[in-house]
Amino acid sequence: MRRIVVLAGGIGGARFLRGLKQAAPDAEITVIGNTGDDIHLFGLKVCPDLDTVMYTLGGGIHEEQGWGRAGESFAVKEELAAYGVGPEWFRLGDRDFATHIVRTQMLGAGYPLSAVTEALCERWQPGVRLLPMSDDRVETHVVVEDEDGGRRAVHFQEYWVRHRAALPAHAVVPVGAEQAKPAPGVLEAIAEADVILFPPSNPVVSVGTILAVPGIREAVAEAGVPVVGLSPLIGGAPVRGMADKVLAAVGVESTAAAVALHYGSGLIDGWLVDGADAGEVAAVEEAGIRCRAVPLLMTDVDATAAMAAAALELAEEVRA
Amino acid sequence: MRRIVVLAGGIGGARFLRGLKQAAPDAEITVIGNTGDDIHLFGLKVCPDLDTVMYTLGGGIHEEQGWGRAGESFAVKEELAAYGVGPEWFRLGDRDFATHIVRTQMLGAGYPLSAVTEALCERWQPGVRLLPMSDDRVETHVVVEDEDGGRRAVHFQEYWVRHRAALPAHAVVPVGAEQAKPAPGVLEAIAEADVILFPPSNPVVSVGTILAVPGIREAVAEAGVPVVGLSPLIGGAPVRGMADKVLAAVGVESTAAAVALHYGSGLIDGWLVDGADAGEVAAVEEAGIRCRAVPLLMTDVDATAAMAAAALELAEEVRA
Repeated sequence: MRRIVVLAGGIGGARFLRGLKQAAPDAEITVIGNTGDDIHLFGLKVCPDLDTVMYTLGGGIHEEQGWGRAGESFAVKEELAAYGVGPEWFRLGDRDFATHIVRTQMLGAGYPLSAVTEALCERWQPGVRLLPMSDDRVETHVVVEDEDGGRRAVHFQEYWVRHRAALPAHAVVPVGAEQAKPAPGVLEAIAEADVILFPPSNPVVSVGTILAVPGIREAVAEAGVPVVGLSPLIGGAPVRGMADKVLAAVGVESTAAAVALHYGSGLIDGWLVDGADAGEVAAVEEAGIRCRAVPLLMTDVDATAAMAAAALELAEEVRA
Repeated sequence: MRRIVVLAGGIGGARFLRGLKQAAPDAEITVIGNTGDDIHLFGLKVCPDLDTVMYTLGGGIHEEQGWGRAGESFAVKEELAAYGVGPEWFRLGDRDFATHIVRTQMLGAGYPLSAVTEALCERWQPGVRLLPMSDDRVETHVVVEDEDGGRRAVHFQEYWVRHRAALPAHAVVPVGAEQAKPAPGVLEAIAEADVILFPPSNPVVSVGTILAVPGIREAVAEAGVPVVGLSPLIGGAPVRGMADKVLAAVGVESTAAAVALHYGSGLIDGWLVDGADAGEVAAVEEAGIRCRAVPLLMTDVDATAAMAAAALELAEEVRA
């Protein structure tokens, strides 16, 4: 049985995983989930990326939206607003609230986030082992420029959801990452993996944050197995989300090749770009990273499974 | 302007207050609310009696039910059950959850319950000043007998809501009351009152628990103003709820007169019984408590206002 480790963010990572499960039905898949965009709202601990993976693979996701629960209602949120309690810009549904209530109660009782995530997954049965990157608190902050030119650091969610990444961003800082330890099982899963995949998740605030936890980048680089990534950019623009904005903040060009080079040949062995970016294959290969151009639009599960299969194929090429 | 202080439990107290507001529209009413049936559920602080008063006077109550919010939905509760997280016997609605989320968040930020209650009332505008009896944690426990004859203490809500008061009760203990201090404003309101009323709330687990907070009983007894109560029993049975069960547990007979004598002439000066209990008036008066028989069914707000007016009249008789 093939052991696959995937470093995943939210929507893109979750959808890729659904394809991967179809492409490799017998594989043991361990997902190391980003927790840098976790946020405390209304006194509750919200883990958007972990939940998106859990809901997507467990059949509870709002399909069109890509995040949150299907068949959702918003009575709690309306009431909080009636009390004048915000933030109003983060839209939490009633069903989703229950997840955060259970999580917060368990954390309050002393369970680490990894144990809480495991307990939540008992219900959702995502068919993968979902591990938070760390049990320690890491919060991605973005240094933004206000209208008057002043700079301040805001929580990633405030930047992303409230401001739709429309404020100029000068830096992305995973606060607390330096002091964080990988969650139990993370380094072991990487060490025992046959293949490591970077899905088309945000390279800065999703995969980048996971790699910022001391020990994880090193473990991936030294695993001695193929590490293959898929470009989240097609034709120089993110398929979804606003990855270009945060790439600019860390000084990386918004092209499929630039993202590959940002990860670097010391970390990844293979890279998939979309057919539209076939012209960038040579540049990536010149940097010592094996590269293929294949369709990278996750239009449905079959198309996504084909992408996952291509990534696994490229991994086998690398291995050979 | 007449300053009225009312010691109130949940449904009975809240409905009485609605009548009192109509009967004395110009009065300054301070409500000292029972917090002995507060409970932590799902990591959230739930204050059933304070909320029932707040929702009832603020126009948010589920009228027929007497507790909880009107137009309520139960998505959060269903989800918690799907996670296997209980208790299932305490039915919290989505709108109600928001109140507990706000309260828990504020308590977590360091605000005392009295400040939290004031903040919640900013929205509900109950038209009275609602004070918890104490900012300290007091939890009413009931010593019950199991089927095998063994005794154990359970939280009042477990006894009341889960078991519908059907387990034999041997004692009622307001755990923590001895160490509790009256909330800010409680003793001052009592000292400055022109009249103090005991609504037809449960004399053991509602009014009794409030009086168990050191200083409150003494303040009422020494206020030097008329203290008038209304019988929660009619014809030897509670109009609503299961007061007879907890009266038995503390060795008090289930009659309107016995409840008056349980409070005692050292505490109350006047007592209203229902017309059906006119035969008990003499026994109450013999104990030195002025007593009248009037209709005590809170069938609607007008009938309740008439009860409140009768209580205020009796208070004036006592004063004269």
